[in-house]
Amino acid sequence: MTDSNLDRPAARKPFRRLLLTGAAGNLGQQLRGALAAWADIVRVTDIAPLGVVAAHEEASIVDLADEAAVHALLEGVDAVVHLGGISVEAPFEDLLEANIRGLYNLYSAAQKQGVKRIVYASSNHAVGFHPTTSVLDIDAPLRPDSLYGVTKCFGESLSRYYFDRFGLETVCLRIGSSFEQPKNPRMLVTYLSFRDFIELVRCSLFTNRVGHAIVYGVSDNRTKWVDNTKAAFLGFRPRDSSVEFEHLFPVTAPTAELDDPAQQFQGGAFVLAGPMEPKR
Amino acid sequence: MTDSNLDRPAARKPFRRLLLTGAAGNLGQQLRGALAAWADIVRVTDIAPLGVVAAHEEASIVDLADEAAVHALLEGVDAVVHLGGISVEAPFEDLLEANIRGLYNLYSAAQKQGVKRIVYASSNHAVGFHPTTSVLDIDAPLRPDSLYGVTKCFGESLSRYYFDRFGLETVCLRIGSSFEQPKNPRMLVTYLSFRDFIELVRCSLFTNRVGHAIVYGVSDNRTKWVDNTKAAFLGFRPRDSSVEFEHLFPVTAPTAELDDPAQQFQGGAFVLAGPMEPKR
Amino acid sequence: MTDSNLDRPAARKPFRRLLLTGAAGNLGQQLRGALAAWADIVRVTDIAPLGVVAAHEEASIVDLADEAAVHALLEGVDAVVHLGGISVEAPFEDLLEANIRGLYNLYSAAQKQGVKRIVYASSNHAVGFHPTTSVLDIDAPLRPDSLYGVTKCFGESLSRYYFDRFGLETVCLRIGSSFEQPKNPRMLVTYLSFRDFIELVRCSLFTNRVGHAIVYGVSDNRTKWVDNTKAAFLGFRPRDSSVEFEHLFPVTAPTAELDDPAQQFQGGAFVLAGPMEPKR
Amino acid sequence: MTDSNLDRPAARKPFRRLLLTGAAGNLGQQLRGALAAWADIVRVTDIAPLGVVAAHEEASIVDLADEAAVHALLEGVDAVVHLGGISVEAPFEDLLEANIRGLYNLYSAAQKQGVKRIVYASSNHAVGFHPTTSVLDIDAPLRPDSLYGVTKCFGESLSRYYFDRFGLETVCLRIGSSFEQPKNPRMLVTYLSFRDFIELVRCSLFTNRVGHAIVYGVSDNRTKWVDNTKAAFLGFRPRDSSVEFEHLFPVTAPTAELDDPAQQFQGGAFVLAGPMEPKR
Amino acid sequence: MTDSNLDRPAARKPFRRLLLTGAAGNLGQQLRGALAAWADIVRVTDIAPLGVVAAHEEASIVDLADEAAVHALLEGVDAVVHLGGISVEAPFEDLLEANIRGLYNLYSAAQKQGVKRIVYASSNHAVGFHPTTSVLDIDAPLRPDSLYGVTKCFGESLSRYYFDRFGLETVCLRIGSSFEQPKNPRMLVTYLSFRDFIELVRCSLFTNRVGHAIVYGVSDNRTKWVDNTKAAFLGFRPRDSSVEFEHLFPVTAPTAELDDPAQQFQGGAFVLAGPMEPKR
Amino acid sequence: MTDSNLDRPAARKPFRRLLLTGAAGNLGQQLRGALAAWADIVRVTDIAPLGVVAAHEEASIVDLADEAAVHALLEGVDAVVHLGGISVEAPFEDLLEANIRGLYNLYSAAQKQGVKRIVYASSNHAVGFHPTTSVLDIDAPLRPDSLYGVTKCFGESLSRYYFDRFGLETVCLRIGSSFEQPKNPRMLVTYLSFRDFIELVRCSLFTNRVGHAIVYGVSDNRTKWVDNTKAAFLGFRPRDSSVEFEHLFPVTAPTAELDDPAQQFQGGAFVLAGPMEPKR
Repeated sequence: MTDSNLDRPAARKPFRRLLLTGAAGNLGQQLRGALAAWADIVRVTDIAPLGVVAAHEEASIVDLADEAAVHALLEGVDAVVHLGGISVEAPFEDLLEANIRGLYNLYSAAQKQGVKRIVYASSNHAVGFHPTTSVLDIDAPLRPDSLYGVTKCFGESLSRYYFDRFGLETVCLRIGSSFEQPKNPRMLVTYLSFRDFIELVRCSLFTNRVGHAIVYGVSDNRTKWVDNTKAAFLGFRPRDSSVEFEHLFPVTAPTAELDDPAQQFQGGAFVLAGPMEPKR
Repeated sequence: MTDSNLDRPAARKPFRRLLLTGAAGNLGQQLRGALAAWADIVRVTDIAPLGVVAAHEEASIVDLADEAAVHALLEGVDAVVHLGGISVEAPFEDLLEANIRGLYNLYSAAQKQGVKRIVYASSNHAVGFHPTTSVLDIDAPLRPDSLYGVTKCFGESLSRYYFDRFGLETVCLRIGSSFEQPKNPRMLVTYLSFRDFIELVRCSLFTNRVGHAIVYGVSDNRTKWVDNTKAAFLGFRPRDSSVEFEHLFPVTAPTAELDDPAQQFQGGAFVLAGPMEPKR
Repeated sequence: MTDSNLDRPAARKPFRRLLLTGAAGNLGQQLRGALAAWADIVRVTDIAPLGVVAAHEEASIVDLADEAAVHALLEGVDAVVHLGGISVEAPFEDLLEANIRGLYNLYSAAQKQGVKRIVYASSNHAVGFHPTTSVLDIDAPLRPDSLYGVTKCFGESLSRYYFDRFGLETVCLRIGSSFEQPKNPRMLVTYLSFRDFIELVRCSLFTNRVGHAIVYGVSDNRTKWVDNTKAAFLGFRPRDSSVEFEHLFPVTAPTAELDDPAQQFQGGAFVLAGPMEPKR
Repeated sequence: MTDSNLDRPAARKPFRRLLLTGAAGNLGQQLRGALAAWADIVRVTDIAPLGVVAAHEEASIVDLADEAAVHALLEGVDAVVHLGGISVEAPFEDLLEANIRGLYNLYSAAQKQGVKRIVYASSNHAVGFHPTTSVLDIDAPLRPDSLYGVTKCFGESLSRYYFDRFGLETVCLRIGSSFEQPKNPRMLVTYLSFRDFIELVRCSLFTNRVGHAIVYGVSDNRTKWVDNTKAAFLGFRPRDSSVEFEHLFPVTAPTAELDDPAQQFQGGAFVLAGPMEPKR
Repeated sequence: MTDSNLDRPAARKPFRRLLLTGAAGNLGQQLRGALAAWADIVRVTDIAPLGVVAAHEEASIVDLADEAAVHALLEGVDAVVHLGGISVEAPFEDLLEANIRGLYNLYSAAQKQGVKRIVYASSNHAVGFHPTTSVLDIDAPLRPDSLYGVTKCFGESLSRYYFDRFGLETVCLRIGSSFEQPKNPRMLVTYLSFRDFIELVRCSLFTNRVGHAIVYGVSDNRTKWVDNTKAAFLGFRPRDSSVEFEHLFPVTAPTAELDDPAQQFQGGAFVLAGPMEPKR
Repeated sequence: MTDSNLDRPAARKPFRRLLLTGAAGNLGQQLRGALAAWADIVRVTDIAPLGVVAAHEEASIVDLADEAAVHALLEGVDAVVHLGGISVEAPFEDLLEANIRGLYNLYSAAQKQGVKRIVYASSNHAVGFHPTTSVLDIDAPLRPDSLYGVTKCFGESLSRYYFDRFGLETVCLRIGSSFEQPKNPRMLVTYLSFRDFIELVRCSLFTNRVGHAIVYGVSDNRTKWVDNTKAAFLGFRPRDSSVEFEHLFPVTAPTAELDDPAQQFQGGAFVLAGPMEPKR
């Protein structure tokens, strides 16, 4: 991963080198193209194949649990968008490697390499055990709804520590449901359009000072479970809404049984998913 | 009030049977038509004549203070929109019958009949003794501005109990001034258009889980005394505003005497109305 | 109920005439003697027999639901300690007469007679549906645990209105369990000694300004579910504690089933008591 | 400064006489024209020349530190828009005369002359030592970023006293950066268009009751450091935004050194400006 | 004001030189002796005669409004206990010189001389317009009850600025009524014994880090209007109480008229004292 | 680890079997004896030797990272006091095994075995990056001061999840400095006597319902950085204080440099300890 700077024209983009982890994933693919406008070099990484590598890109397959590889990955990086790791409920052993050990490797390497900022894909599942009859601001107490959610809480604590101790800034994006379109009625509330997702990352990278910030990643949907007022210093204003998808779901009377946790809590089906048994 | 289901085609609307109380009143008349789209059967009731009864309607004249009649009224009902009772300052004896005894009858019957949800017309007069220089969120302490307002506080407490004890959900609508148009400058702040009122009831009926919710019923007026942020899980977004009516009221310098309570408190003239003497 | 002032020596006690309602009840009997030191005349009333009437006392049997009798009762009174009404779960019809109609009569008469202050026996059952794992300050939202608790919420709202509207001051005492000694483990938390109860009434009567105040009536027990910090302007400092009674209850592991509401909520068994059927 | 009322036609505008201080300054010039529509007579004052005086205007050059002159200036005034004084960091001695002694003279005279309301140009520099990673509501603790900011805190305290003591109402406008256009990236956040500034003054003058209010003066910019929710009773809704000026500032990666106070705090360069040495 | 250190034995006390302003006043006299144990040299100053000067003392008569004299006064000082200035309502002109100009001189000089900490005698009159039915924590909004109180707010803002800007620490003591004994019933609430006052200064000087702190100076009186919980990092635990003086004031029924501000607000008679006319 | 119940007399103690992890450590040794009074059988475990095993004890050496061993360890257990794991800063790899993997094993096994409650030794280092000039209540945001502190945050999140998902109760003890006596001035603030520690565990085990609770483990020291008011439902009242040890530390003027993190933050030297390099 040598510095390819010498044979390039002088940098003209805001960042010299951005690292994108999880670049082969659902959101990574969406973001990868957008980063081209923001950095001279975009280093992309994943454990899955990364497809065609553009002229401005550096690609490498790295397991985040591999400490040495991660330290190499962070060399020469200005800022990171960390979408890597596991983003659904999974056996604890898998989460431990990808989301705990892997995240520590990332922060440890970033600090040593002098990286200034990490945009961290946290999740609304860090607070998914709050009821659907509440509206959370960014100071709401952690209520993970799954072991996956617990690892996202870990990430928010670890990044807080790296900011308080070393000044390494992080924006924790508590991303809702970022897909082409909502897949069920719950996602009408948690929907984050790809366009709004990219805008959220843009705000997180370019706001001059972010400290250790938390922000919910949702579009301007009609129904809201979260309130970003206290994160308004990031300048994130969603432009999309799930309203255009409401017609996909027939209007029904509230039919959920009162004791169905997937209806009671913001995390939806996640609250019942775990802990999963390891695959053996 | 036999079940007329047998001779109807199969239900296709979200609710099978909705009950609307106070159907002959100002707001009841507005809402009555809208309910047709939401339920196969709309049961309408009032103490005043109910006019022409549509094919999808069941109509009955019931005094809410009549326990047996109210229990019959609730049979077979899925959800209730309760606009009945007295909605202005009145002698305590009258309020006691309509808004206290009547409301208890309603909740007692609803619980016994297995009703799942009541949309309850509370009022901004439950908090009308807050000053006009404050902005109330839905957790603001109760400050009734009249005996009428006290009975609305009673309704909010009673419905809270029925939710905590029996799981019977309620949305308390703290309705402002819902008329064709504002009648005085204060109503520029408290105005709720009929269209927004209907939308608010729609949100209250169709949101999957509401628990025991409180929400202010005001349109998107320029000046605000209330803040619905914490009720955003209901998905209510007003579309109207009193701005179009501002021209009706000449702009004047603040002329109110500093000690005029009707100018000092959100409840306006209500703060001076009661207690009224009973009519004898 | 003529003014007996003329043939008495000049008043030397702080109050000229105090009214004690519920004087024949559990707490009324405790307080009745103490009032002698604070007022030249103590007017005692109840619906039950009042026993021997002392020289400084005026006694009358009054049903609080009797409007005319209550207005007569309030004549010439400086301040009221209102312990009357029903203090346990009961059929709604009974609560309506004693705790709603009766309370309105009391406040209506007090206002007309120029009474300056009422010390009102509210109850921790106005907030009894808060979990036993929380500590409530005096701004905690109302969560009545019974129809009885709902009537106490009514009393707090009604008295708030009379203060905001007429300046008639009230101290709402959210009394816990005031008996000779705790009768079960829950009462170790809610215990209020008779001595502390009397001191609480004393503070409520003699603090120069109280506005509309709420204060929890508990002794300095080891375990606390409530926090009176914001009511410290009343100067109430309990001197007793249930610690001396802890030996009465054998120490056991937490054995309550997780879904036993009587263990989950501060109101204890009240949360399951109502609504009761009327006695017919 | 005689009363010119006699030879004028009957008043038809909302105010009879408004006083504008600092009329020759940046914002004073913007506002001066707008006031013509709101008052029969606009009294304008400054220590600098006031240019052409219109028919509806009364102009006088007054040093606010001149007690007698200020008392004369307030005669016959209904309400004041106080933009006078020093609005940048300056030697303490200068600030003392203009912003402390001068402000006391203004309030003392206003109270004696029976003025009902003052719209006071406070500043975001009263809270400029809050970090740029926070969003302040109107209750945020004072954190002045300069001696100038300290004098604005003084003004907010003094006006609070005059309201609590004498009922003289004040709206404290914590004005951001009100210029033709933002001059640097920070001003994209603090920008207040002239049009929005005038609207803010309009709301402050015409809202029927304001008590002692605090409101941030910023347009609807994309990035926000402040939150006016609790001041919504003033009805201020900005119509402009700095978005149209974002193109003026090239997008860059966050380059500020972590220990540059001008980047860390909302006050920007003000936090490093003072205290200045007096000019001698 | 030469350094008398050379002819003394090596310093063994915690501070080398403490400055006490207002040393001739009521509290200054109480504190002066105590300081001997804490510093090798105690520099005492006042505008009034300072009496006998002890061997460990340096005494000088200084007008705080005299900038040059104050700068000389601060030379070689480690920390300051600032009791100087006017401590009652007075004409604004007098307050301006002593409490505003004088305080600025003190902070300006302290910063230039490298002083690390100032213990500043603020006052409960900075928040005296809060009602007597509230309990204030240290974040309560400023509500000065007098021009004197306004100058104390100024001091709290100025010292906040010096901490945020220069790291000069201050503890603002909101001193209640510190006399031999309470002089009226209100002082039973605001009483601060001399012993507790000295202990409060001791905590303020010796706590390792104080930042910019606010703490109420009251003894452990029965009735409380203030709550120091959030200042518990100072370690101040009052040992005295006004209980021993309660017998001095006969128990009376609340007799104050409802509209007597001196009974309604914590500041007592101060709320009616100002503004005073200057003595001419 | 067979059930030894058959050959014992009938159980008379509150718990049948308690598990104590970390039994060989500093606090484990203190607690081990106390548990004898509370349970028929005390199962003790550690990775270090456990010394003499009493008749009522079951002892086993278990590495918490050994999943199968932990599951066996939890068989037949009613409740757990979990002091095991690493309690100081350490290389991340070590913390990962002991405090993350080990804790997951414990909760996973406890849930499967039907354990009702875990008393979990969290730490004030979970919030150690709060400044020493603040007082934290139990809702204060997490601010770990070390990787060790991050793992304690993980434990608080994991146990929250197990409560919300499975009803497994936990009390998180944010233990300060529990030693024979304070070892430095900071520990005068964080000191928890052994006696108070044992009492805190007693309250945590015997309070009937605890849900998921957080409580600070400090004695009644003079200076406080934490406030347990909201945890008062646990009934913990410390009886000891560090006052008796204050004489051990000479009184000095605040000498710490303003930029010494170990003086600025509650975590003391921990804030500078990590991350440590692994021992290889």
